[in-house]
Amino acid sequence: MNRINTLFGIKYPVIQAGMIWCSGWELASAVSNAGGLGLIGSGSMEPEILRIHIQKCKKATTKPFGVNIPLLYAHAEEFIRIIIDEKVPVVFTSAGSPKVWTPVLKEHKIKVVHVVANVKNALKCEEAGVDAIVAEGFEAGGHNGKEETTTLVLIPLVREAISIPLIAAGGIATGRGMLAAFALGAEGVQIGTRFVAATESSAHIHFKNVVVSASEGSTDLTLKNMVPVRLLKNKFYNELFQAQTSNATREELLEILGKGRPKLGMFTGDIDEGELEIGQAVALTDDIKPAGTIIAEILAEFNKALKEISQID
Amino acid sequence: MNRINTLFGIKYPVIQAGMIWCSGWELASAVSNAGGLGLIGSGSMEPEILRIHIQKCKKATTKPFGVNIPLLYAHAEEFIRIIIDEKVPVVFTSAGSPKVWTPVLKEHKIKVVHVVANVKNALKCEEAGVDAIVAEGFEAGGHNGKEETTTLVLIPLVREAISIPLIAAGGIATGRGMLAAFALGAEGVQIGTRFVAATESSAHIHFKNVVVSASEGSTDLTLKNMVPVRLLKNKFYNELFQAQTSNATREELLEILGKGRPKLGMFTGDIDEGELEIGQAVALTDDIKPAGTIIAEILAEFNKALKEISQID
Repeated sequence: MNRINTLFGIKYPVIQAGMIWCSGWELASAVSNAGGLGLIGSGSMEPEILRIHIQKCKKATTKPFGVNIPLLYAHAEEFIRIIIDEKVPVVFTSAGSPKVWTPVLKEHKIKVVHVVANVKNALKCEEAGVDAIVAEGFEAGGHNGKEETTTLVLIPLVREAISIPLIAAGGIATGRGMLAAFALGAEGVQIGTRFVAATESSAHIHFKNVVVSASEGSTDLTLKNMVPVRLLKNKFYNELFQAQTSNATREELLEILGKGRPKLGMFTGDIDEGELEIGQAVALTDDIKPAGTIIAEILAEFNKALKEISQID
Repeated sequence: MNRINTLFGIKYPVIQAGMIWCSGWELASAVSNAGGLGLIGSGSMEPEILRIHIQKCKKATTKPFGVNIPLLYAHAEEFIRIIIDEKVPVVFTSAGSPKVWTPVLKEHKIKVVHVVANVKNALKCEEAGVDAIVAEGFEAGGHNGKEETTTLVLIPLVREAISIPLIAAGGIATGRGMLAAFALGAEGVQIGTRFVAATESSAHIHFKNVVVSASEGSTDLTLKNMVPVRLLKNKFYNELFQAQTSNATREELLEILGKGRPKLGMFTGDIDEGELEIGQAVALTDDIKPAGTIIAEILAEFNKALKEISQID
C-alpha cells in the first residue's frame, strides 16, 4: 500500500485517464471494479450527459471512481456542481488553474488531483492544496505542455520539487513502463492510450483498430503555437501539418480544425477526417482486451520486471 | 554482472557517451578508471588528434575504453584504420550504416556497438552483426531521430525486437533514470549530458556553467527538416528558430549555421554565438564533479531507489 492507494481507497495505484469520447461509465467502472481508479472523461460531455454517466457508474461499481474536468471548458462550473451533488469521491482537473475549484471540492470531502507538465505548475498545485499531482510527459496523447519535457526527465524533477503524492503519465502502457515510473519516484501511474483499446472504451471500433495497428512514429505533437496536442498522423493531421508548414494563419488553422473533429474520429469512427488524440504508447498497444485483463497484465509484468533487476555492487 | 559488463569487461554498465568537444582522453579514462566505459568522441577531431587522444587514454587507464565514430564524417575510414592500429577494444558507431565497418572491426576483435533511434535500424544493426545496440530517445542531446520516440517508449520496443544486449540513452543522468532504463529492459545506460559537467570533460567552463544552471524547457529539438539536433536555447538557437519560423530556405539556414559553431560554443566558450548540443537531462544536472563521483552517486541512487520499490499484490 502506498500513498496513492490510501488516498483513493483503491487496491492498485493504476489510474485510467479521463479521455474525451473514450472513457464513459463503462470503462471507468470496469477499471474501478478491477482495483484501479477509473475516470469519466467529462470533456466531451454536456452536463446532463455527465450526470447520467456518473449515475450509471455508481450502479456499475461500489468502488471509488472519479471524473476528469478540463477547467477551461465552458461547462466546468456546472460539472463541479453535478459532481458535488452526485457525491463523486475523486476529481482530476486539468487545463486551468487549480486555485479556484480545489477549495470548493475539498470542502465537500472530494479528493482533488491536478494534471501538470512542468515543475512550476506542480508547485502551484501544491500551494492550492490539491491531494496529488499527475505529471504528464511529452509522449502523452491529447493536449500537452509547451516545454516538451519527457516523462523520464519530468517525473524526477517534479518528485524533487513537491512532497505530495505523484502520479506519472505519458508513454506508460505496460508493467515495465509502470516500474520505470516508480523508479523515477512516482507512486502511481495514469494510463490513457492503452485503455482506448479496452473492450469497455467507448472509442469507435475503427479508432481502436487504428490504435492497435499503429507503431513508433505514428503520432506527432502538433499545433505547437496554439494548443499543443498529440495526434495520430491520419489524413486530417496531414492537412493540418501542410497548413502549418506553409505558415497558415491562426484563422486558417481554426477553419481546418473545424468543429466536432474529435467526435467524428474517435466516436463516429471516421479515421480519415476525424481528429484522433493518442499518445506514443500506441506503439506498445497491440490488442483489444477487457480493462481488467489489461490491469492484471500490467501488474504481472511490473512484478516480473522488478524481480529481474538486481542491486549493483 | 550482466551481458554489458561481460561484453566490455567493465565493472558497471555505465557508458559515457562520445561527445564532440567534450569527451577527450581525460574524460574517457576517468570514466573507465571508475569502472564504467569511457568513450572518446572523435566527431570533432582530425585523425592525428584522435590518435593522440587514444595514446594518452591508454597511458591514463589500463581499463577498457572506446571511441565513438559518426560514420558519415569525412574521416570515418581513417579513424577506423587508426583504431585498429592502436588496438582500441571498443567502437561505438552512429549516423550511418552499420553494414560497412562492422565486419572489418570485428575481424580485428573490436567490439562494435551502433546507435539507433528506432526499431527498424535496430533490426538492421542486429543483422549487420553488431555486439550491442544503443537506443536513444527524443530527449537526448545532439543529433536525434525523426520519429521523436522518447526513451520510455523506445526501449521496450527495441527490447522486444532484438535479442542482443541493449543500452538505453536519452534523458538519463541519475540512478533513478538508470533504474528506469533497466525496468524498461535495458542492460546498460549511455549518459552524455551529465558527463559534460564532469570535471574531466573538455567542455569550456562557460558551457559547463550553463549546463548546471539550465532547467526544464532549456533545450529544443530543432532543424527537424534537415538534421534534427537538440540544442540549448541560446542567442544562436533563437536566430535559427526565427529563421525557421519565417520559412528560411535550406541555404539561408546553412548560412546561419555557418562553420565551427559547435566548437565556438562548447570548446571556446562563446555561449551566445556557439551551438550548444545538450539533452533534456540538463535539468537534472546541477553541479560540476569528477566523473568517478558522478558514477558512484548514480550507482548509490540506483540501489537505493530499487530497495524502495515493492512487489504489488
